[in-house]
Amino acid sequence: MAKEKKVEQITDMDVDFAQWYTDVCTKAELIGYTSVKGMFILRPYGYAIWENIMHELDARFKEKGHVNVAMPMLIPESLLQREKDHVEGFAPECAWVTHGGSEKLEERLCIRPTSETLFCEHWANIVHSWRDLPLLYNQWCSVLRWEKTSRPFLRHREFHWQEGHTLHATAEEAIAETEQQLEVYARLCEDFLAMPVVRGCKTDKEKFAGAERTYTIECMMHDRKALQSGTSHYFGDGFAKAFGITYSDKENKLVHPHETSWGLSTRIIGGLIMTHGDNNGLVLPPRVAPIQVVVLPIAQHKPGVQEAAAALVERLTKLGLRAKGDFSDNSPGWKFAEYEMKGVPLRLEIGPKDMEAGQCVAVSRHNREKRVLPLESLETAVPALLDEIHGALFARAKANLDSHTYTARTLDECREILQNGGGFIKTMWCGDERCELAMKEKLGVTSRCIPFVQEKVGDVCPVCGKPASTMIYWGVAY
Amino acid sequence: MAKEKKVEQITDMDVDFAQWYTDVCTKAELIGYTSVKGMFILRPYGYAIWENIMHELDARFKEKGHVNVAMPMLIPESLLQREKDHVEGFAPECAWVTHGGSEKLEERLCIRPTSETLFCEHWANIVHSWRDLPLLYNQWCSVLRWEKTSRPFLRHREFHWQEGHTLHATAEEAIAETEQQLEVYARLCEDFLAMPVVRGCKTDKEKFAGAERTYTIECMMHDRKALQSGTSHYFGDGFAKAFGITYSDKENKLVHPHETSWGLSTRIIGGLIMTHGDNNGLVLPPRVAPIQVVVLPIAQHKPGVQEAAAALVERLTKLGLRAKGDFSDNSPGWKFAEYEMKGVPLRLEIGPKDMEAGQCVAVSRHNREKRVLPLESLETAVPALLDEIHGALFARAKANLDSHTYTARTLDECREILQNGGGFIKTMWCGDERCELAMKEKLGVTSRCIPFVQEKVGDVCPVCGKPASTMIYWGVAY
Repeated sequence: MAKEKKVEQITDMDVDFAQWYTDVCTKAELIGYTSVKGMFILRPYGYAIWENIMHELDARFKEKGHVNVAMPMLIPESLLQREKDHVEGFAPECAWVTHGGSEKLEERLCIRPTSETLFCEHWANIVHSWRDLPLLYNQWCSVLRWEKTSRPFLRHREFHWQEGHTLHATAEEAIAETEQQLEVYARLCEDFLAMPVVRGCKTDKEKFAGAERTYTIECMMHDRKALQSGTSHYFGDGFAKAFGITYSDKENKLVHPHETSWGLSTRIIGGLIMTHGDNNGLVLPPRVAPIQVVVLPIAQHKPGVQEAAAALVERLTKLGLRAKGDFSDNSPGWKFAEYEMKGVPLRLEIGPKDMEAGQCVAVSRHNREKRVLPLESLETAVPALLDEIHGALFARAKANLDSHTYTARTLDECREILQNGGGFIKTMWCGDERCELAMKEKLGVTSRCIPFVQEKVGDVCPVCGKPASTMIYWGVAY
Repeated sequence: MAKEKKVEQITDMDVDFAQWYTDVCTKAELIGYTSVKGMFILRPYGYAIWENIMHELDARFKEKGHVNVAMPMLIPESLLQREKDHVEGFAPECAWVTHGGSEKLEERLCIRPTSETLFCEHWANIVHSWRDLPLLYNQWCSVLRWEKTSRPFLRHREFHWQEGHTLHATAEEAIAETEQQLEVYARLCEDFLAMPVVRGCKTDKEKFAGAERTYTIECMMHDRKALQSGTSHYFGDGFAKAFGITYSDKENKLVHPHETSWGLSTRIIGGLIMTHGDNNGLVLPPRVAPIQVVVLPIAQHKPGVQEAAAALVERLTKLGLRAKGDFSDNSPGWKFAEYEMKGVPLRLEIGPKDMEAGQCVAVSRHNREKRVLPLESLETAVPALLDEIHGALFARAKANLDSHTYTARTLDECREILQNGGGFIKTMWCGDERCELAMKEKLGVTSRCIPFVQEKVGDVCPVCGKPASTMIYWGVAY
């Protein structure tokens, strides 16, 4: 009896990108809806992607000396209020616990929107001497922000992330850490997720509540909108002062340490979908894919076919690859569509004729290119092909980024770019927040970042016409 | 300049076991206190133990076909109320969110105390046919129960755990799953944590709110009290009926599936401490220890000593062991005490004389036994020694369990056992809850489990004197 489930159609991405995106999230079984608005379920296939990202990122953090901890999920209101800018930024979107069991609490507690205040309270207790520094901590958890709107992965009231928090003796060390961790995110995006990034600094308006400086990586989605994909913050000694964290330096003077934090969330999965996906569903880069290779027997009732397919799965698994065989009684056509929807990067087909010829047929998900692979070369050919697919996905995304990154000198030029489909717009900027706000009001774009790699694309700010020496990226952002 | 931190003394466990326990939790840097009562910080060393347990358990779950998911942390009150027994059990200890940002919520939400209701709501949406079953889900998360008292690891208002939730076509399959997962916990305790367990069933009074049957593993701590270390629940189709989960079976009839859940929490770390620890601090079994071997250079200012110690660390790391060298300028005595406090199972010392003789000195944490190891045999000797330490710790804990498990036929016999230091008491039981309550009132013990391995230790219930065919374990529990 064939599986009754039909191959489901999804909306054409060129007709309605937003609906296409939602279709992929649900049809690829990444996300489940719940009865609480803005709260989503990460279903097994969606969570498996996050597990692979966690595993990879965690190893990269530990390589640089970071250790994991677990802080409480609740923050007393008075603790959140200790740092002025921070509470202003986060209090409006906190969820508040007011009752424990049947008792009203003396002080209400918020579910953490982020945990700087908890780390600071702890550090004030345990840091005494320069010998206690640096502290390189990270936490894997979920946080809660009571957003008014929601979209799968991109905006959840509860989202999963990691938040790194570090404490250093000097400003220089803390800034170096902030930059280093941004680069960890950038390498993860490029080498693991095949997502090219623009690295830079946020403007004061866009920086994290309480930070002196926020670094960011910005990715371009298929619809040319920007996705802020990871941020890293330098706090100076502001939090240390607010929370009374001090240490004795080598001269036995009592001084304040310097702090950083940095985070990357499940939002990046939204980025993966919108960078690589197509009208057949999800397209996953091989290194993050829960299933890297699916092996499908063709004419599987014929003698030896299932065994031959199972042998391929076993050989691939031995290589350390995540391989799966599908021996269900669904038709090959149904299986093709199913694993395309799920974005499995490589499909191997093997049938009686292939067995006779000592080969299998390899089909890449992203371009449906078919290749015949001699079975004897499987152990070298498949890993090479997966690397090639990673490279091709990265190149395709890079071409999208490059070809839709524009330079403009005037507001009219900006407007024209946006009317022609938009993308990232590079202009000079005078540094005045009023001009930044005007860009939003007049054109609907926000500043994405002041890139580390600067170019001189003009002489004046396109808004006020005053001399400007800073180049900045603008875009419409998720 | 030598580290100023002093080697800290802890309370003698025979003088004040509770204070000894708290001392170990803080001095070994496992736990940090916070400004919210009952909420603790898992510090890096404590969290590293939990990471090792998670890693091991997760692999064992996946081996049996389970997949991970992430459910929301908030449950609407109406959803929690859907299953009568369940809400009665958990509502009194829920923390309630009543405000999101500045708005009062229409319906208050509780922070999950456990997630059966969320899984059921989801399953009602996605389960249709017998082909969709079984669903073998697990979630790693923290949950919240507003307890009145708290102790590190043993009773947190927020604690970390995994909760497995599975759905099956038949009662038989669900019961087999419940039993299988209890055995996964039992193997973890015995093979990985060196903690011998008693496997059995909870009485109706002690079972999980909403469950038809609760299985448990019970461990004996050093002070002879019991620790419930992992539980596995069979729900029948009660939740499925309450939440309207149905599927079409092979005959196309609409029927209710059967459900299980099972959980193990950071509480087990409290068990580790109280099973293996001693008056010098923590004692960790090698397989779970964040640092399995610490290598200490002796007379490290002498030429070549640090290099020789570093070479040992490198060789051990290459074996896949978690090895650390301590090259700080603290004295060897300070280092000995520090790594004893942290429970590192094996210490290797190497100094100029050892180098000359081509050897190092190995000292086991749990009995301070010294052995000379030829350097050339390091790769075989150290793993063998770690396995031997695991075996010795298990045997020591098993001896404690066996020698303090007693048989009694009357209340007077029970009383005498308890007056002599207590332990587990095996008696017959008539099955009447009133007799169970009487044991608590008269003797201060609770039923621990009805063990799978039954013995006939008498003919009648010691409370009511009626004929009894069931043997049960009693004890004072954490």
